[in-house]
Amino acid sequence: MPESNRDDRAHRVGGVWRARLRKIIFEADTPAGKAFDLILLAAILLSVLAVMLDSIEPVNAVWGGALYKVEWGFTILFTIEYFLRLVCVGRPSRYATSFFGAIDFIAIVPTYLSIFLPGSQYLLVIRVLRVLRVFRVLKIVQYVGEARLLMSALSASRRKITIFLFTILTLVVILGSVMYLIEGPGNGFTSIPMSVYWAIVTLTTVGYGDISPRTPAGMFLASIIMIMGYGIIAVPTGIVTAEISFAMAGGKVYTRACRECSDDAHDSGAAYCKRCGARL
Amino acid sequence: MPESNRDDRAHRVGGVWRARLRKIIFEADTPAGKAFDLILLAAILLSVLAVMLDSIEPVNAVWGGALYKVEWGFTILFTIEYFLRLVCVGRPSRYATSFFGAIDFIAIVPTYLSIFLPGSQYLLVIRVLRVLRVFRVLKIVQYVGEARLLMSALSASRRKITIFLFTILTLVVILGSVMYLIEGPGNGFTSIPMSVYWAIVTLTTVGYGDISPRTPAGMFLASIIMIMGYGIIAVPTGIVTAEISFAMAGGKVYTRACRECSDDAHDSGAAYCKRCGARL
Amino acid sequence: MPESNRDDRAHRVGGVWRARLRKIIFEADTPAGKAFDLILLAAILLSVLAVMLDSIEPVNAVWGGALYKVEWGFTILFTIEYFLRLVCVGRPSRYATSFFGAIDFIAIVPTYLSIFLPGSQYLLVIRVLRVLRVFRVLKIVQYVGEARLLMSALSASRRKITIFLFTILTLVVILGSVMYLIEGPGNGFTSIPMSVYWAIVTLTTVGYGDISPRTPAGMFLASIIMIMGYGIIAVPTGIVTAEISFAMAGGKVYTRACRECSDDAHDSGAAYCKRCGARL
Amino acid sequence: MPESNRDDRAHRVGGVWRARLRKIIFEADTPAGKAFDLILLAAILLSVLAVMLDSIEPVNAVWGGALYKVEWGFTILFTIEYFLRLVCVGRPSRYATSFFGAIDFIAIVPTYLSIFLPGSQYLLVIRVLRVLRVFRVLKIVQYVGEARLLMSALSASRRKITIFLFTILTLVVILGSVMYLIEGPGNGFTSIPMSVYWAIVTLTTVGYGDISPRTPAGMFLASIIMIMGYGIIAVPTGIVTAEISFAMAGGKVYTRACRECSDDAHDSGAAYCKRCGARL
Repeated sequence: MPESNRDDRAHRVGGVWRARLRKIIFEADTPAGKAFDLILLAAILLSVLAVMLDSIEPVNAVWGGALYKVEWGFTILFTIEYFLRLVCVGRPSRYATSFFGAIDFIAIVPTYLSIFLPGSQYLLVIRVLRVLRVFRVLKIVQYVGEARLLMSALSASRRKITIFLFTILTLVVILGSVMYLIEGPGNGFTSIPMSVYWAIVTLTTVGYGDISPRTPAGMFLASIIMIMGYGIIAVPTGIVTAEISFAMAGGKVYTRACRECSDDAHDSGAAYCKRCGARL
Repeated sequence: MPESNRDDRAHRVGGVWRARLRKIIFEADTPAGKAFDLILLAAILLSVLAVMLDSIEPVNAVWGGALYKVEWGFTILFTIEYFLRLVCVGRPSRYATSFFGAIDFIAIVPTYLSIFLPGSQYLLVIRVLRVLRVFRVLKIVQYVGEARLLMSALSASRRKITIFLFTILTLVVILGSVMYLIEGPGNGFTSIPMSVYWAIVTLTTVGYGDISPRTPAGMFLASIIMIMGYGIIAVPTGIVTAEISFAMAGGKVYTRACRECSDDAHDSGAAYCKRCGARL
Repeated sequence: MPESNRDDRAHRVGGVWRARLRKIIFEADTPAGKAFDLILLAAILLSVLAVMLDSIEPVNAVWGGALYKVEWGFTILFTIEYFLRLVCVGRPSRYATSFFGAIDFIAIVPTYLSIFLPGSQYLLVIRVLRVLRVFRVLKIVQYVGEARLLMSALSASRRKITIFLFTILTLVVILGSVMYLIEGPGNGFTSIPMSVYWAIVTLTTVGYGDISPRTPAGMFLASIIMIMGYGIIAVPTGIVTAEISFAMAGGKVYTRACRECSDDAHDSGAAYCKRCGARL
Repeated sequence: MPESNRDDRAHRVGGVWRARLRKIIFEADTPAGKAFDLILLAAILLSVLAVMLDSIEPVNAVWGGALYKVEWGFTILFTIEYFLRLVCVGRPSRYATSFFGAIDFIAIVPTYLSIFLPGSQYLLVIRVLRVLRVFRVLKIVQYVGEARLLMSALSASRRKITIFLFTILTLVVILGSVMYLIEGPGNGFTSIPMSVYWAIVTLTTVGYGDISPRTPAGMFLASIIMIMGYGIIAVPTGIVTAEISFAMAGGKVYTRACRECSDDAHDSGAAYCKRCGARL
């Protein structure tokens, strides 16, 4: 048997295995694929839970060592999974640079990084890097295929929301500065950035109460900001609601261009071009 | 008169009584049925009020004994009512396993359970079990028949809201962890779960202020979270609004075109084309 | 000249005066009527301002006497105005029992009541009664004729909002009770009513922070309540938005009943009955 | 060469330069104009950042002198820019009195004003005037041309929102006064204006917690206010959403019926009937 032939067969056998693995790892419509996804999901949640528990001081004191091992166990598992994904996928470079490929990678890096930064004083940093593992949770999004309508509605309202956010930021800078002048450092408004922070806390109706106006003028301005925030909160809601309603109603068909005048914003039920009267 | 005959008559007489009772207890369109429902409603509200008053320390010190008797009185009344429901309903097992049957049962159990757990140290526990009686309030829902449109709108947006909640949970875990790293245990962010709690308090614009950022970086991230929460709160509102609008519009079916005139914006219940009068 | 004739002429002259007065007092489309309304509006605002200033301790110490006179001045003015209204209106009893007639009356009563309750210890009570004068502000509503669309939208959503409020109340009673059991009097949740108050503060995203959960279980439940509140706030917004959209779009014409089948929920542009196909 | 001729040529050369400058300064569709706008935007943001940093005590202690120079540098730059705008624009008086002309002017005045108010005790006032420079940020709005739809939606709902705000103000005055009577100065509700401030903080769901009810009656009223605020927040959202939906739908004119087929749901810009193709 010639060398190349054996290679080819091995390659073919490898191809069969790769295709099977790909089906299990990347797809979820076979029983094996579904099981794999569910196990992976459970592993991700358990791993995040371990990181969260590890950050609680009393838990860490007692179970710190066990949680350290658990973390390494999950990291090794996810590393194997990452390489299997690289091996079985058609274009590994494309996967590696994709959104979820990047998240898969970021999710395993922190634990390994913690080796190269030894020393007792860096132990906390290790935990810091660990925390980034929660990005792994984002992979869950991979499993839901229903978010499309919401995404398209949010994406359609992207520009309007940007303008809105810009207006809000300008507003809080001005309002925060005016409040800084009115209340001053003596009442907790120690600087303009701090006052801007307060303005955001107030305008978004969060209202911690760590800083709050104490002078009558400050209370008056705060009242205006709050009532303004009342009206302002209506704007993003209005934008998103209108877009979702629009997306749900099937929206205007922007793909049906008129042959005569190329106008393309026709209703879904239109029979004639509303601009030139030609049949669609 | 043969035995069986007498039984049968007794059964028939019982049948008449059962039917009458059923009409009074389960239906609300006869004067007797309406009166029963109103009295029951008043009894439920009074019973809940008694439990609530009992939990206030100074009230409990003075009226504790009387309220204890009141509670037992209501419990016995509701127990009788529960058995009457079981007796007069067509299929008792079906009622017992239904939503309101279960609530009716849960609403009487706590008081009886408090007998089998004696001892001074359990006295507080008795009160704990008592509190579960507030579930009885849920029975009020039984009396409103108007909630259907809201229910159907919420039910239709169930999946979208699930995706939304999932995204929010992922977001607060990540934001909480980052905040834990920025602020640290020294500023009240004692652990990741605590920081996640803070992120939820902030993102939902509740803002207790029991924990709030103190470092400039923490305030900056908090500002971003708050402004984000501004936009995020728009999403469930948009979903529910769109669904309610849709439900109120009768859910116009844009896919049922008229054969005669091709008009396609018909109500879901329409039988004839509203434009040309042709049968759909 | 006979007695009766003179009376009649006097009556007619009085009639002319009454009609003129009515035009000035009740209508706002003549220059005199408009001027009267603006002066009255200014007087109402000044009077409310006086009551508000009077309640501020340092202001009261210095200007208390002057503000007392100002209050009596306004009360006398408003009393004259009230009697002029009674005199010049067509049916005095109808005005007196109308919404704004009642408010006009309530707005002058407190000051007079303060005479019959003398004594230094009642002085504070006088102020208490005074405060009720702010109801006078409600008269401003009389001057806006644009609120109709909003009113009709809110009125149409009245029942849905009632159901919603009912559900919310049931929810906060249950959640408050569960929270009382979890946190207990030691953490500020001193009684079930107090815990229900906390649940309302949290669910409505107000979040004072005077009471906040301290145990992990309490924080977990609070997080669920907050995220729930996120979704719940969407419901009234959805209801009102849908109703306003509906009202703005001109809504379905529920007054065009089909002659054949009496179906009356036709679109504004419908030419044929959607149920039986008869021409509308 | 006659004098006048030279003048004329100089004028023409100046005219060419003015036109070029105008294109660079006022327009953004040439590379030079775009570059100018981006540099200006960066300068504005840096200048605002300098003012904000200057207000932070520790930063001011170390970098105060440098930031003072930076501020003067930016002020001189913006002054030159302002005069260049005046020189190259067609009608300088029109620009100077326009919205953005006024903002451009207000943005440079404070620094110069700080010269004529010398003395150590006025140093803080200088900073006060400085803060007004944040108005320069508003110029950013100049660069976005997308805000039109939002503006028109908000402008269309202007009157409805005014009525809404009026109702809210009346409500908070009444609720604040009642709360003042219930809680009294002993519980932080020191005056009616203070109580009105609290009512606004509560109704808008901000909830600082600096003032919060302590008596059972106060908590009960506060609960009602909060649940009311829940429903009230729905109104501006409903108004804005309905207007945005309306604006997005192109404002379909339901009053323009086609003469041929009587279809009446035409877009506002439609020239032909979308159903039958007849001219509208």
